[in-house]
Amino acid sequence: MRLRLSLLGSTGSIGRQTLEVVDAHADRFEVVALAARRESELLANQVARYRPRLVVVAEPTGQRDVSAPTVLDGPEGLVAAATLAEADIIVIALAGQAGVRPALAAAAAGKCIALANKESVVCAGELLMRTASEHGATIRPIDSEHSALWQCLDGEADGVPAPDWGRALVPGRFSPGRVSRLILTASGGPFRDWPPERLHQARPEHALRHPTWRMGRKITVDSATLMNKGLEVVEAHWLFGAPWDRIDVLLHPESLVHALVEFTDGSVKAQLGPTDMRLPIQYALSYPVRLPNADLPRLDLAAARSLTFCRPDPDRYPCFGLAVEAGRLGGTYPVVLAAADEVAVELFCEGRIRFTDIPALIRWALDAHRPILKPTLSDILSLYDETQTRVKEAVQCRRY
Amino acid sequence: MRLRLSLLGSTGSIGRQTLEVVDAHADRFEVVALAARRESELLANQVARYRPRLVVVAEPTGQRDVSAPTVLDGPEGLVAAATLAEADIIVIALAGQAGVRPALAAAAAGKCIALANKESVVCAGELLMRTASEHGATIRPIDSEHSALWQCLDGEADGVPAPDWGRALVPGRFSPGRVSRLILTASGGPFRDWPPERLHQARPEHALRHPTWRMGRKITVDSATLMNKGLEVVEAHWLFGAPWDRIDVLLHPESLVHALVEFTDGSVKAQLGPTDMRLPIQYALSYPVRLPNADLPRLDLAAARSLTFCRPDPDRYPCFGLAVEAGRLGGTYPVVLAAADEVAVELFCEGRIRFTDIPALIRWALDAHRPILKPTLSDILSLYDETQTRVKEAVQCRRY
Repeated sequence: MRLRLSLLGSTGSIGRQTLEVVDAHADRFEVVALAARRESELLANQVARYRPRLVVVAEPTGQRDVSAPTVLDGPEGLVAAATLAEADIIVIALAGQAGVRPALAAAAAGKCIALANKESVVCAGELLMRTASEHGATIRPIDSEHSALWQCLDGEADGVPAPDWGRALVPGRFSPGRVSRLILTASGGPFRDWPPERLHQARPEHALRHPTWRMGRKITVDSATLMNKGLEVVEAHWLFGAPWDRIDVLLHPESLVHALVEFTDGSVKAQLGPTDMRLPIQYALSYPVRLPNADLPRLDLAAARSLTFCRPDPDRYPCFGLAVEAGRLGGTYPVVLAAADEVAVELFCEGRIRFTDIPALIRWALDAHRPILKPTLSDILSLYDETQTRVKEAVQCRRY
Repeated sequence: MRLRLSLLGSTGSIGRQTLEVVDAHADRFEVVALAARRESELLANQVARYRPRLVVVAEPTGQRDVSAPTVLDGPEGLVAAATLAEADIIVIALAGQAGVRPALAAAAAGKCIALANKESVVCAGELLMRTASEHGATIRPIDSEHSALWQCLDGEADGVPAPDWGRALVPGRFSPGRVSRLILTASGGPFRDWPPERLHQARPEHALRHPTWRMGRKITVDSATLMNKGLEVVEAHWLFGAPWDRIDVLLHPESLVHALVEFTDGSVKAQLGPTDMRLPIQYALSYPVRLPNADLPRLDLAAARSLTFCRPDPDRYPCFGLAVEAGRLGGTYPVVLAAADEVAVELFCEGRIRFTDIPALIRWALDAHRPILKPTLSDILSLYDETQTRVKEAVQCRRY
């Protein structure tokens, strides 16, 4: 029995690497649904190769090139892919707010979700975790840092997971009697050693030159601002139920230690690995089994020679503080944070604002926000769009 | 219900630190038996403080100062302490071959053994593991490296341990489908940066200046020769059932990463902690629970700044190669290795041989040995004594 995957966001960086993992284990995994934002040659090739039952094009352009037993479009199509009865795992690798509705739908359908979409946890963390818990859904993080925390926490919780292949399982939780601290690592990005007073001169081509990881454009710029790590702190809070003051971040330029967990007795576990997203993707798919994968690189610590750690300088990375602040404030603040960041990164990549305008715009958006304490999905989605519109206007009118 | 400890070797370094752990958790642990090699003021104080039912003096001097409901002596006394019906855990912290018989006795009695004695695993590995498995005994390693491997392997085996407090539990095993490599770290000792051609000038006061750990004299010299790590490779082979070619060693001068496990998918888990033996001792006693301990120092990676790794240079550390060679040869070779090393270290500490004579003597003893393939306990013990006598004679006659 192969594990049946529904893959949302198949043409993005995580989606493509998920299919590489499927290729390496064709005896273990099969693809029953593929969803992408737009039609493309890549999507057509994927459909031809994996022959999914269901294909979803979230933003159809009229012309229809892909063929499958079922072809759907729009948000409803994504929800269909996220709740597909014959899928054992829903991989949500959509970028941005497009992932929020499908993640919630999969949670409400009690699915096992391999989640790479940050926005669904950051913007709808409480709602998502409550829904998942009410409907017996499982969320397996794909992020390398959260996968590392999960691996370090696994077996260290009060409840021990059952070793059934492919069944929905609860990832590690923060057991306060046993766990004292979660530590996320961050490369520090390409500007780690730039003098802070030169950061306004940073150009997109500098920001996109990530020292260690192969990732999409948005997340690479988020790594340069450390927004990425701030969002991951918010995610760790919701995914593992960790109190805010028990989540730390260390800069670790070599990006080989992905996260650490300190236990109440003082023992620390770390997860290490080569900087290759296929490793956490595969773990999320194969858990609780570990599968050999000859295509994946191996870690050689003797070749690495040295692993270094230091605390991040808050002045160099204002976005990090903004993310944690929004997370702690809760309600709809994280929605504004994520939406403002997305549009700010876009404008920066288009050369329309400076690197240092990214935190300034987010600060402006957070300050202007009047929060809703317990937002619904539609509150979240409309606020996300509103915030993006307002931030774009603010840039046009130089109002921030 | 407090967990009842029988502590063999209470006046040594590990024994004293075990009692510090007991002191920190007087609500969790009590001492029902104490055993030491000789009578001493320290032993008398320990007896007065912990009021054990049974006290054992392995080598009585005639005069008897300690008092307890039962006082025994000799090897039979140690066996009584190792098999005491009312003890939940037997801590074997005896140094050298004195630990072998009690470890085997505890295994044959189906006990839960917290084991700090290297010789019982090195000299009698096969016999010990077979006996433990036949009688349902459990061996929980106290060595920081093996404790680290255990913590990294826990929950990663095919069988998941039951979370019952104080019940006999199987520590992590090397599951070949899941685990690909065990990696032990070594500080490299005080001679790490000495030119190899100067090593014959190394004096006991240099060898005893260990850069990171507080330990007994024998093990500190063994760290300087890397014999310690060679013995630990042999231990890892037996304790976890790891094939020889799946056990690696890396020099790691900071001694903060105690061991790492690489899994078949390429993911690596490491256990880190301050260099304090009370941490692995406490883990062996409290497993599967982790207990807060405010007396223990905490790891601060940002303060440590850098963790470095390199492969050991075999020319600088010939003892390491000898240990692994003896382990792989099996039979009684490891007995000769351990016995020759013990006496060589003693002679070195007394200033009677040079530092570089330690491996020369061991090489001589191994070459002269005619092995027994499946030794019994009495084979092992008499060979141990014989080897020591022969090595001493060889030194007196300058015969090696």
